[in-house]
Amino acid sequence: MIGDIEVRFEPQGKRIRIRRGQNILEAASRAGILIDAPCGGKGLCGKCKVRVRNEKLVPSPAEEKLLSPEEIERNIRLACQYFPQSDVVVEILEPAIESIGKVELEKGLFRIRSRCPVSKFFLSLPPPSLEDQRSDEERLLSALAKADRIAPFVRLRLPKILREANFQVTATVVEGEVIAIDKGNTEREIYGVALDIGTTTLAAYLLHLPTGTKVASYSALNPQTIYGADVVSRINYTIEKKEGLAEMRQRVLEGINKLLDEVCSFSGVCKEKIYQATVVGNTCMTHFFLGVDGRNLAFSPYVPAFSRTVQLRASEAGLDICPDARVYILPNIAGFVGADTVGIILATGLYKKKGFYLALDVGTNGEIALGSREGITVCSTAAGPAFEGAHIQFGMHATSGAINRVYIEDDVRIGTIDGGAPRGICGSGLLDAVAEMLKAGLIDSSGRMLSPEEAEGFSPALRERLLIYEGDRCFVLSRAEENALGRDIFISQRDVRELQLAKGAMRAGIEILLKEMGIEARQLEGVFLAGAFGNYIRRESALTVGLLPPLPLDKIFMVGNAAGRGAMMALALPSALRRAEEIARNCHYIELTASPEFTNYFMDGMLFPEYNVLSFK
Amino acid sequence: MIGDIEVRFEPQGKRIRIRRGQNILEAASRAGILIDAPCGGKGLCGKCKVRVRNEKLVPSPAEEKLLSPEEIERNIRLACQYFPQSDVVVEILEPAIESIGKVELEKGLFRIRSRCPVSKFFLSLPPPSLEDQRSDEERLLSALAKADRIAPFVRLRLPKILREANFQVTATVVEGEVIAIDKGNTEREIYGVALDIGTTTLAAYLLHLPTGTKVASYSALNPQTIYGADVVSRINYTIEKKEGLAEMRQRVLEGINKLLDEVCSFSGVCKEKIYQATVVGNTCMTHFFLGVDGRNLAFSPYVPAFSRTVQLRASEAGLDICPDARVYILPNIAGFVGADTVGIILATGLYKKKGFYLALDVGTNGEIALGSREGITVCSTAAGPAFEGAHIQFGMHATSGAINRVYIEDDVRIGTIDGGAPRGICGSGLLDAVAEMLKAGLIDSSGRMLSPEEAEGFSPALRERLLIYEGDRCFVLSRAEENALGRDIFISQRDVRELQLAKGAMRAGIEILLKEMGIEARQLEGVFLAGAFGNYIRRESALTVGLLPPLPLDKIFMVGNAAGRGAMMALALPSALRRAEEIARNCHYIELTASPEFTNYFMDGMLFPEYNVLSFK
Repeated sequence: MIGDIEVRFEPQGKRIRIRRGQNILEAASRAGILIDAPCGGKGLCGKCKVRVRNEKLVPSPAEEKLLSPEEIERNIRLACQYFPQSDVVVEILEPAIESIGKVELEKGLFRIRSRCPVSKFFLSLPPPSLEDQRSDEERLLSALAKADRIAPFVRLRLPKILREANFQVTATVVEGEVIAIDKGNTEREIYGVALDIGTTTLAAYLLHLPTGTKVASYSALNPQTIYGADVVSRINYTIEKKEGLAEMRQRVLEGINKLLDEVCSFSGVCKEKIYQATVVGNTCMTHFFLGVDGRNLAFSPYVPAFSRTVQLRASEAGLDICPDARVYILPNIAGFVGADTVGIILATGLYKKKGFYLALDVGTNGEIALGSREGITVCSTAAGPAFEGAHIQFGMHATSGAINRVYIEDDVRIGTIDGGAPRGICGSGLLDAVAEMLKAGLIDSSGRMLSPEEAEGFSPALRERLLIYEGDRCFVLSRAEENALGRDIFISQRDVRELQLAKGAMRAGIEILLKEMGIEARQLEGVFLAGAFGNYIRRESALTVGLLPPLPLDKIFMVGNAAGRGAMMALALPSALRRAEEIARNCHYIELTASPEFTNYFMDGMLFPEYNVLSFK
Repeated sequence: MIGDIEVRFEPQGKRIRIRRGQNILEAASRAGILIDAPCGGKGLCGKCKVRVRNEKLVPSPAEEKLLSPEEIERNIRLACQYFPQSDVVVEILEPAIESIGKVELEKGLFRIRSRCPVSKFFLSLPPPSLEDQRSDEERLLSALAKADRIAPFVRLRLPKILREANFQVTATVVEGEVIAIDKGNTEREIYGVALDIGTTTLAAYLLHLPTGTKVASYSALNPQTIYGADVVSRINYTIEKKEGLAEMRQRVLEGINKLLDEVCSFSGVCKEKIYQATVVGNTCMTHFFLGVDGRNLAFSPYVPAFSRTVQLRASEAGLDICPDARVYILPNIAGFVGADTVGIILATGLYKKKGFYLALDVGTNGEIALGSREGITVCSTAAGPAFEGAHIQFGMHATSGAINRVYIEDDVRIGTIDGGAPRGICGSGLLDAVAEMLKAGLIDSSGRMLSPEEAEGFSPALRERLLIYEGDRCFVLSRAEENALGRDIFISQRDVRELQLAKGAMRAGIEILLKEMGIEARQLEGVFLAGAFGNYIRRESALTVGLLPPLPLDKIFMVGNAAGRGAMMALALPSALRRAEEIARNCHYIELTASPEFTNYFMDGMLFPEYNVLSFK
């Protein structure tokens, strides 16, 4: 549907035609430019800021509320609130995808154990003649001891490739099936890709399968983000809009195929030479990836459509790799404990540990697994998006310029991701700030922040940072003149409450699992912190705010994207793929919403520990 | 691509817009009306006649040559030669598909041995609850002892169907996979379809699988006919035209899906309840059906792309039945001995006979199999299209009004298909006419027809039928006043030559096979005549013209569409499907074009037997 209004996006220079009644958020998304909009374009989060160049606009009520007078003066508006009436030029202030996307080229740095499931054979076949009229298929298969059939796309391509290559070809074989045919000798080019479909972030890991070497990896914002930061908004979109589910699938496929483009062009690997893919993601993301209705995940009893390992071909999955490549979606455990958790359990080896270990994936939705080789219990808890920087006044994703480290002594010192000028606060920065404020006494164990008047005993520098903004107590982390925003970046009392809700939910989950397994926190051999958040977090802060039960620091391990690593293991090692299925089948799932004790643990968990009881140093 | 000229077709009343430079043959095909054009629209066969209503046209040179002055006067033109310049109304004289299409409804009449490969199970599943949060997939599979996985479309549909049916569903299982899910109890509805894709005719046989009962069958002209009557013209089209192969595939799928519509609406069977399909056809047709390039079939050494049994899902094949139904394309033996021949061998039981049998599929391309349970040898021979009524002056398909029986005593008596007024001559009519003329002495053993002057000893009635038309000797079978054409329908000397070429090629193939197996014709236990032609033929005539070697009449069996019957057996009996693969693998193929003796046998075979040596009566 092409409309009659032209929107030009700068600095990208992209133009798109829209109809009256479409907003800039939709227009940008159609133009392939992602604007972060955690609330899904409802005018609630105030994140989707753009600057309108050639038109002076009256701000909407939502904009009046969510934008500063300076921003309104600069003609900054919310993309979701702006419905152009005529041709317009719009300036994108922070394109979400460019700022997160990052290719990592890794040569021989990272290797995993591999038992390559894909074999390649260079063949010099006799050309057909009146004495040898075997079909192309027969000619190929009779030269291959390890294959007895050809895949659909091979059947289509075989006649042409055989003749163009003068019958000198390389056959790719998986489980007795020829899945690809190349001209000449390409025996060494065997790649696989592990995909992690997060609600927020997509990641692709390209592996050279015979050696288990990670060749490159890439991550980018999940383009579905425009439908909302959390899975429930996205499920709602698929319920409310006809074709919404197909759209949701299309989005994530576009995002993944773009990742594949990047990772391949960067490493010089031909996409057609990727012969296997594994996929992890939370349950809802795996549903969307397959185009399966996930509406039942949003309502009690939160039942997924499928949970076992799914196997299909790349052409069916919509992945732009070798079309007959096998794609495996790792199994889900429950509606809110997905294949990503299975990946974490696989990667951390939780299922084979002698003692008890805890594995946490901290995010909008927190997944928690507790167990040993004797058995694993898992649960999921709706922590809310505070850990991802959403619902926080100056919250942002963990990208360049995000405040991620806070130290408070006589004054405040901050650190940012990539060392850039501060632009906002990410989840780990929030956690750090609150932990330091707790230690300094600026927040008490109930979470109450001191008012400027109550801070008499503090240094003047700290006192000056306490202020009241729109009736709410605030603590300034970065002054307007020091940062990229041109206004004070602060933590508000409300932000502290958001963090309390998030960490309270996580902690309640941990306590219920401990109780279920009949053990105490001190019996834990270790805690694995996984996920992007888990990578940036300071262990001390996690303990200070009570996200984790009291434990010695050296028992806490930051394991980064363990879900992605699990996907890589399942890619390179067929036994790991089978193990994933066993893990999912044998995990004991606890539904927290059905647990009568959850509310109590949640209330307790929201409180901060008294600072003097902390003895983890 | 929509053009600015409107063509209306009568009596169908269909309208279509075309561009300048498109002819009526293309326009009709786009409008879903098939006009028979054996030469593929090259202006050579003169068959694609239409009447133009509102425009007086100057005939093209091809039309001058191929149409009678009366036809030109009546404004009859060739659809392939007429490129309208403005809006036009065109009258279709003989829509090909309607005249061949025939639904046969058969209840309990025809049954084959069945060991149903598809099972259905009615399940009353417990609805999910917070105490039972298993996924839909798990819930279904754990209730099914015989299944351990769900098919892709079931995965997509499961959540909705389970809930709409209140968890009372019927699961369809094939080889451990749930391929369909219905609301309520549909255990009794298990159907399969056997498809025969002939160069000329498509046929569908609908079977109730548990009982092996044929419920209905339907046949129609292969819509690819507009690209030419023979496979080589069609292959040429796919070579010459970009997207020609995709178009060819699309055509045959449209044709088949239309058959499925007919057969299902006629029998009241829901298409979604067809859970398995088998396909036979010649090698080229199976290539087109799968969209596989068949160009190498057209050039020595005539190599197919594939030859083994192909298994795929209905959704991949493009068949409009249960999307996860399994579709099996029976194996091919060689470039010109396809799955249809495998079907004939299966249906006639040639592979398990104690003595030697011969099986012939007589058509444009004649396939011949000779053998016993000790082994089978096959060959293919390009008989040319005379047996299909093409390249014959008044030739037509074996449809209503075709002369198919000729008796000559003092005068000529004829019979037509369905008893209608004569419109032309089909293959069996041609064979009959020539056989009777031979017996009467109107043709000698070299094939030469008597001129009117040489017929002095004959009855006046017969003498009057001998005439010279455009320099060629002719014998009139039906007078202008007796038939639907309004002009004399005759057999010309050239027609006799066409028949000699056709039967010479067939006979040469038979002789070479006999020699290869080291046996004489008299050692044959029997001959199976298969195919539409084989159904209408008179055995005496086949012997009189020498199509078959001298044999007692009672050793000749008309087996009708044995290829289709073979497909039905493979559908209802998994062991027959496996047997088909063995047959294809073990058949010994002889390439006649590589046989040094072929020319000799062909020359001999073209001659007619001396009438006095015939002793088969």
